[in-house]
Amino acid sequence: MFKQITIIGLGLIGSSLARVIRARGLAEKIIAADGSDSVCEKVAELGLADIVTSDIRQSVVGSDLVILSVPVGAMSAVGALIGPALHPGSIVTDTGSVKAAVAEALGPHIPSSAHLVPGHPIAGTEYSGPEAGFSTLFEGRWCILTPLPTTELGPVEKMTRFWEACGSMIEIMGPEHHDLVLGITSHLPHLIAYTIVQTADDLEGDIKSEVIKFSASGFRDFTRIASSDPVMWRDIFLSNKEAVLEMLQRFNEDLTALQKAIRRGDGDYLFDTFSRTRAIRAQIIEQGQADYRTSDQVRQEGTPPAAGLHTGSDLSE
Amino acid sequence: MFKQITIIGLGLIGSSLARVIRARGLAEKIIAADGSDSVCEKVAELGLADIVTSDIRQSVVGSDLVILSVPVGAMSAVGALIGPALHPGSIVTDTGSVKAAVAEALGPHIPSSAHLVPGHPIAGTEYSGPEAGFSTLFEGRWCILTPLPTTELGPVEKMTRFWEACGSMIEIMGPEHHDLVLGITSHLPHLIAYTIVQTADDLEGDIKSEVIKFSASGFRDFTRIASSDPVMWRDIFLSNKEAVLEMLQRFNEDLTALQKAIRRGDGDYLFDTFSRTRAIRAQIIEQGQADYRTSDQVRQEGTPPAAGLHTGSDLSE
Repeated sequence: MFKQITIIGLGLIGSSLARVIRARGLAEKIIAADGSDSVCEKVAELGLADIVTSDIRQSVVGSDLVILSVPVGAMSAVGALIGPALHPGSIVTDTGSVKAAVAEALGPHIPSSAHLVPGHPIAGTEYSGPEAGFSTLFEGRWCILTPLPTTELGPVEKMTRFWEACGSMIEIMGPEHHDLVLGITSHLPHLIAYTIVQTADDLEGDIKSEVIKFSASGFRDFTRIASSDPVMWRDIFLSNKEAVLEMLQRFNEDLTALQKAIRRGDGDYLFDTFSRTRAIRAQIIEQGQADYRTSDQVRQEGTPPAAGLHTGSDLSE
Repeated sequence: MFKQITIIGLGLIGSSLARVIRARGLAEKIIAADGSDSVCEKVAELGLADIVTSDIRQSVVGSDLVILSVPVGAMSAVGALIGPALHPGSIVTDTGSVKAAVAEALGPHIPSSAHLVPGHPIAGTEYSGPEAGFSTLFEGRWCILTPLPTTELGPVEKMTRFWEACGSMIEIMGPEHHDLVLGITSHLPHLIAYTIVQTADDLEGDIKSEVIKFSASGFRDFTRIASSDPVMWRDIFLSNKEAVLEMLQRFNEDLTALQKAIRRGDGDYLFDTFSRTRAIRAQIIEQGQADYRTSDQVRQEGTPPAAGLHTGSDLSE
């Protein structure tokens, strides 16, 4: 599909891309570039690429696809490095979780002879680094492409085929719209999870140790989300500030209303709210974005402590 | 272990208890009692008990263990019904998620000839009803017993052996302390999850459908928690009001501080907070309350959409 692909930033996403590109033969040659020497050593050790280098600028020479898998806050600096070295006609894409800020950060550095097609694979785990990646990470997951008004159709189609070859389903939308949707589906949930784990971490000693002990009752799910990469998430919140603050304000209003209902003992309000939220889960299951296991399946498979679906709630009717 | 056990309330927990009691021969006879005729029919159909009845008072006659698995708000009414019919020397326990309010609701109804040993198995799924239960639900999970100052040691030891026979690990603590610990590990996380799903549900039409579509990026974990039984959770918040409001206030302070950091662009504060929360996850994994899968395991097993551990975060370094 491509002659030579350069991947810059070999974390979970970048290293998973290297693996799937090789597994499915999507490029004749893979160049891996990372500013960190220890990451480069690890990538070489794992044999993820044909060439591994810490020279970012040099790594893009002759490549017809360049993928930036670095934290959003590093996009501008990487763009400035590679801009002058890009091959005419090459495609530049990224995998950042914020799209308007990335287009703004990269746009000025990409020469008009190259094509910028920002993208965001909705895939990941809470682990980081080149060892954490695997080739099936993108299988059955959405990848959102947010081409600029000036992006030509050809490169967008090529990136669509590329992500499909990685196993993804493609959606195309504007960068601002992407940032709003991800603000509520991803960024706000992460912010909330970080907050509640922080609140628990600030508890007095004896209570804190019990929080860890009895984490299975709901808290544990939040700690998983809140163990995601700190640099990556710092950059996301700084670069999707407006959408996150907007969604946070709405969340705060809803939380205040529930708080008031608890204080007043308004059981009807609580019951109505808790009933309404069940419907959204049903729609997600219907659309195949989450599994529904029958009780027969649960019985057969037991309740693995890590299975998420069957360990979080603390129901004792 | 017991001659005759009565289980009142055959939801997820009650029906799971019926199954494990039979599977491990913990009683010669199981009586199942539920105020709902449709639940009684289902329980009879599933063959979960020797006798199924909707006559709550009659169901406890002659039993040496009575387990109340009804929503916390129903404990007082059930206690009033069964009190006069309890067998002298019998043990009464419950499985409610709030313990001080339950002791208060049940205490006055239990005659001094019987023994009240409130309990709380930290186990569950987001599903409800007698079909949702399974015999291994309590395997490897904590069960907290909160005996009253007046409770004799013998019945507490007997309930310890009972829950161990169900596969649980036992912890004994005071009811107020239980309610504080569960307030942060279980009740607050559920309240937050309900809130964020409500916030998403209130979004304008087109964004809302995309929230469901792209839920895999973090939001989906919250919808699972927020699909838990509404009656049960209404009662929990009403009966653990003080601890929940106290934890909620701390949470709000932490959230406000993060909000301010985002607004001001204070990357250092965000990075420090996000780094700190990783440590708690590590401790939970260390204590065996959550699985850590190596990247080799992840590679072999792929990323099942429902596996929780590997689907929630949206990492794109």
